[in-house]
Amino acid sequence: MGIGAFALVLALAVCVTPAERKCLLSGSWRSDTGCRMVVFILSKDGRFSGSYLPGSAASDPQILTSPLEGSQQDTGLVPQPTFSFTVHWRLPDSEAARTTAFLGQCYVSTNGEETLHTVWLMREAADSPTEDWKATRIGTSIFTRIK
Amino acid sequence: MGIGAFALVLALAVCVTPAERKCLLSGSWRSDTGCRMVVFILSKDGRFSGSYLPGSAASDPQILTSPLEGSQQDTGLVPQPTFSFTVHWRLPDSEAARTTAFLGQCYVSTNGEETLHTVWLMREAADSPTEDWKATRIGTSIFTRIK
Amino acid sequence: MGIGAFALVLALAVCVTPAERKCLLSGSWRSDTGCRMVVFILSKDGRFSGSYLPGSAASDPQILTSPLEGSQQDTGLVPQPTFSFTVHWRLPDSEAARTTAFLGQCYVSTNGEETLHTVWLMREAADSPTEDWKATRIGTSIFTRIK
Amino acid sequence: MGIGAFALVLALAVCVTPAERKCLLSGSWRSDTGCRMVVFILSKDGRFSGSYLPGSAASDPQILTSPLEGSQQDTGLVPQPTFSFTVHWRLPDSEAARTTAFLGQCYVSTNGEETLHTVWLMREAADSPTEDWKATRIGTSIFTRIK
Repeated sequence: MGIGAFALVLALAVCVTPAERKCLLSGSWRSDTGCRMVVFILSKDGRFSGSYLPGSAASDPQILTSPLEGSQQDTGLVPQPTFSFTVHWRLPDSEAARTTAFLGQCYVSTNGEETLHTVWLMREAADSPTEDWKATRIGTSIFTRIK
Repeated sequence: MGIGAFALVLALAVCVTPAERKCLLSGSWRSDTGCRMVVFILSKDGRFSGSYLPGSAASDPQILTSPLEGSQQDTGLVPQPTFSFTVHWRLPDSEAARTTAFLGQCYVSTNGEETLHTVWLMREAADSPTEDWKATRIGTSIFTRIK
Repeated sequence: MGIGAFALVLALAVCVTPAERKCLLSGSWRSDTGCRMVVFILSKDGRFSGSYLPGSAASDPQILTSPLEGSQQDTGLVPQPTFSFTVHWRLPDSEAARTTAFLGQCYVSTNGEETLHTVWLMREAADSPTEDWKATRIGTSIFTRIK
Repeated sequence: MGIGAFALVLALAVCVTPAERKCLLSGSWRSDTGCRMVVFILSKDGRFSGSYLPGSAASDPQILTSPLEGSQQDTGLVPQPTFSFTVHWRLPDSEAARTTAFLGQCYVSTNGEETLHTVWLMREAADSPTEDWKATRIGTSIFTRIK
């Protein structure tokens, strides 16, 4: 590659500013705990739906793919948007209803790698306010794109 | 009131089983920290929208009513449904984007009083995964109906 | 009371600045969920021990008073100190080990009322890192002094 | 390797039960976010002290090593103990007091690798109960031993 071509590549590289790399939620993701998630294409107002499959699903036929619904903030305006989504778990009839709310941000690195950093809350239905104190679990999940 | 009438009232009271008292999300609510929230009527699939106003709003003209979007689980099936909703804060331009995700359950007592018990996560947009560790705050809110 | 005496009282009231009202952790406390807690006198470096009794203990003879250990920050320096303490639950042998960590602040109002605002994490022992995601519950407790 | 030798190896493998592999908190650890931690030797009752250094410390001379204090549950009895510890941050005078409480479990894998899985709460001192709702941040950290 001649010096001219090298300068051109350099110029192009400089032109692709961080603001132009965008993190997109739609697609297939895998979490650091082995869960898989598919986010379908986003609507113009940032809403999306998808499906969620826990990591232990492969070995447990009772675990089903569960639907998710969410929304992304400032769609199209910011390169690293925050988002939230909720998984309403499909469980065997014997188990109490369970819901997980994820709150996160979609980051994109200088080499274009996307990661989702999330904190989640999971609630099981309780019988009364007296039992409510133990209803909520907490944790974090980091998702990377499945290519 | 004669014994006959008393027996009738007793019979009616017994007939109204807990399963028939239902906690409904729609309406106006006030939190234990002074926030106000209006939940508009739910759609058949349990989705709802509404508006949220922080407690400090009265004294700070820069705080605006912010929109909320959410969904209730098992609408029409269970008397004390779980739910989740997200507030996308409308903030002065000078502040970083902020989103709060609430996860809770709608309880109804034997005398028909409804309360919402929630745990929430609040996230501020961060610049990179390195800064992500400090992005998320946590707390609880209990809402009672404004009559 | 004459005008002179009134002026004296007023002067004394003005002299007791907020910085002189101090929130002290030692003593007996009751939480908004009906738990009781005793904090024994603090050591000079801010460490303390005590005991904790869950709200449901009155009706369940299997629930025992559990020991707590903690420390207060900036003892003697700040009027509203932050603190942390841990309860190692004494449970029936059939149940998994359980630990709760509280992190809070001791507030004192203008009329001298003390309240402890805390956020807590409760962890049950898990078998392996794969099971760790569901080990931690979260909630809040507000304590007021039992007089 | 003859059948006899193979049987001997098998017998030895069977003898080293998981209960004999123990996860020990004392030593040097590095978190997934680049923080470093040293836990000094534990006392007989499971208490320990140590020091904590944030990941960003290398580039910011204002960040100091901060002391930590904690305790481990069921010392010597269980191979994968739960534990809690608190870091009282040493910060520049300009910043508000800050405390972090970690609650976690020490896991050891079949090949002897130890990891600490923790959830933490971080609190900044607030001025009054009205400001308390925003005082607490949450996150997770996974530590591996520095060899």
